[in-house]
Amino acid sequence: MPYEFKFRRRIEFAETDMAGIVHFANFFRMMEVTEHAFFRSLGLTIHGHDPVSTTGWPRVSATCDYRAPLRFEEEVEIHLLVAEVRTRSIRYAFVFRKVVDGSEVARGEVAAVCASVEKATGKLSAVPIPDAVRALIEPAPTKLLHEGQHA
Amino acid sequence: MPYEFKFRRRIEFAETDMAGIVHFANFFRMMEVTEHAFFRSLGLTIHGHDPVSTTGWPRVSATCDYRAPLRFEEEVEIHLLVAEVRTRSIRYAFVFRKVVDGSEVARGEVAAVCASVEKATGKLSAVPIPDAVRALIEPAPTKLLHEGQHA
Amino acid sequence: MPYEFKFRRRIEFAETDMAGIVHFANFFRMMEVTEHAFFRSLGLTIHGHDPVSTTGWPRVSATCDYRAPLRFEEEVEIHLLVAEVRTRSIRYAFVFRKVVDGSEVARGEVAAVCASVEKATGKLSAVPIPDAVRALIEPAPTKLLHEGQHA
Amino acid sequence: MPYEFKFRRRIEFAETDMAGIVHFANFFRMMEVTEHAFFRSLGLTIHGHDPVSTTGWPRVSATCDYRAPLRFEEEVEIHLLVAEVRTRSIRYAFVFRKVVDGSEVARGEVAAVCASVEKATGKLSAVPIPDAVRALIEPAPTKLLHEGQHA
Repeated sequence: MPYEFKFRRRIEFAETDMAGIVHFANFFRMMEVTEHAFFRSLGLTIHGHDPVSTTGWPRVSATCDYRAPLRFEEEVEIHLLVAEVRTRSIRYAFVFRKVVDGSEVARGEVAAVCASVEKATGKLSAVPIPDAVRALIEPAPTKLLHEGQHA
Repeated sequence: MPYEFKFRRRIEFAETDMAGIVHFANFFRMMEVTEHAFFRSLGLTIHGHDPVSTTGWPRVSATCDYRAPLRFEEEVEIHLLVAEVRTRSIRYAFVFRKVVDGSEVARGEVAAVCASVEKATGKLSAVPIPDAVRALIEPAPTKLLHEGQHA
Repeated sequence: MPYEFKFRRRIEFAETDMAGIVHFANFFRMMEVTEHAFFRSLGLTIHGHDPVSTTGWPRVSATCDYRAPLRFEEEVEIHLLVAEVRTRSIRYAFVFRKVVDGSEVARGEVAAVCASVEKATGKLSAVPIPDAVRALIEPAPTKLLHEGQHA
Repeated sequence: MPYEFKFRRRIEFAETDMAGIVHFANFFRMMEVTEHAFFRSLGLTIHGHDPVSTTGWPRVSATCDYRAPLRFEEEVEIHLLVAEVRTRSIRYAFVFRKVVDGSEVARGEVAAVCASVEKATGKLSAVPIPDAVRALIEPAPTKLLHEGQHA
């Protein structure tokens, strides 16, 4: 079963700030884009809905360590590893590397909870991860996650 | 009846880009923030909802002319004028001026249509502006709008 | 000589707003991303620099007309046409179409001036478009631009 | 000496996403805005420059734990505490609370390193925190930080 995914992206002008580098908050957007592309690669969507409710994955926590700056037009590869699958939540680990030389730029983690939102009221509540999702995702081998932490 | 509104804002770091100035797309966000503050000043909200639908103001058109750059930590005053009120839409004109010296930075326009979105289906349709809104907003005098255009 | 370019992009979650559609300001970011990809396709960069100055393309004006909403995960094709080349500025026209059915979503224009920024002082001044750029870009045939306006 | 700061902000429409709540990456922008306002309150700027270099505070790490969603037009108070001052870096802790009822929404941390960027080359290097800054900032009492962690 899939436990990893790689996604490439070229840095856009609007993602930089006056320091000439990618603004630190944008790394979290890149983690999310990678997570969503991972879901699509499995034939899933991160945002389902039916007439009475929508399901989504609000974040419980997010963290990023920055090792080197990313600049305009540089290509970055974002490596997603499934770090943990619990009843109602998934935790992902990410490593950002420059495509040009493989050097590490940043690494981070995001934990997201499976949630249902009632359309009529906006009420949000955590729900068990659907079987259709659980059947397609498993945690990466500990060894791989461990290597990730010390690469 | 109110036809104008002024809003002040200090430029944030994340609004700049690697050219060291506010990214041009962010002027449209500042116009919107001003429009919403105008609505709040009238006791209205730009985004209503009941159990079956939400109402909002999707944009029909937006335009901006840039005369001078805005930089980090500069304070800008955004002057909103109601340019036109139609059955289902409102058009606003905006002038951006630096607080420090009143110099003009940019000016723009946004036209927004009053719309209802069915929660169950996501279907969006234009609707007449509610009387409660119409009763509180009127177009600015032509002279004022004209001055605006040639200031 | 090149006068048009097409660029595809999939809508990201963070580009949507609480109305469930792409926030209107993000269309301007998509126009810019397309313009930059156009430059790269010609072997140019939109942001040059040497030890004493940087060159860039600050915007003079930007406009967008919205015809239909764009939603999360939809693919959009952005069609850039060079509308005008002047001594110090270029004007681009853009049409946004859904990849799934070719339906038009929005169209816009951006005019950008070629500028040099002194690194020591931050002073920005308009400069003639470099020959290396001018040699590679020409305006689209009027007929094509005209069709664009009335498609 | 100052070791804390409070900043209020009203949630903007463009900060929400299609889930109807503030996008998680925007909490990091709010932390930064608060940090910069803290610096301004001390008569300092986060982004200095002279003819040959700029100084700034690139991020080393950032983390956020989310406890409740924030919605459009809600007012949030961001409480900054200086968690640690080292030779070349500062670590801040933040707690987000709704103004309406004081309920906690999120908490996070950002560590930033004092850096100098050579204008001619773009070369970035960590430097000791200037005395003028160090003289004005001290870590919050452990008790306060500890309470923060378990509030």
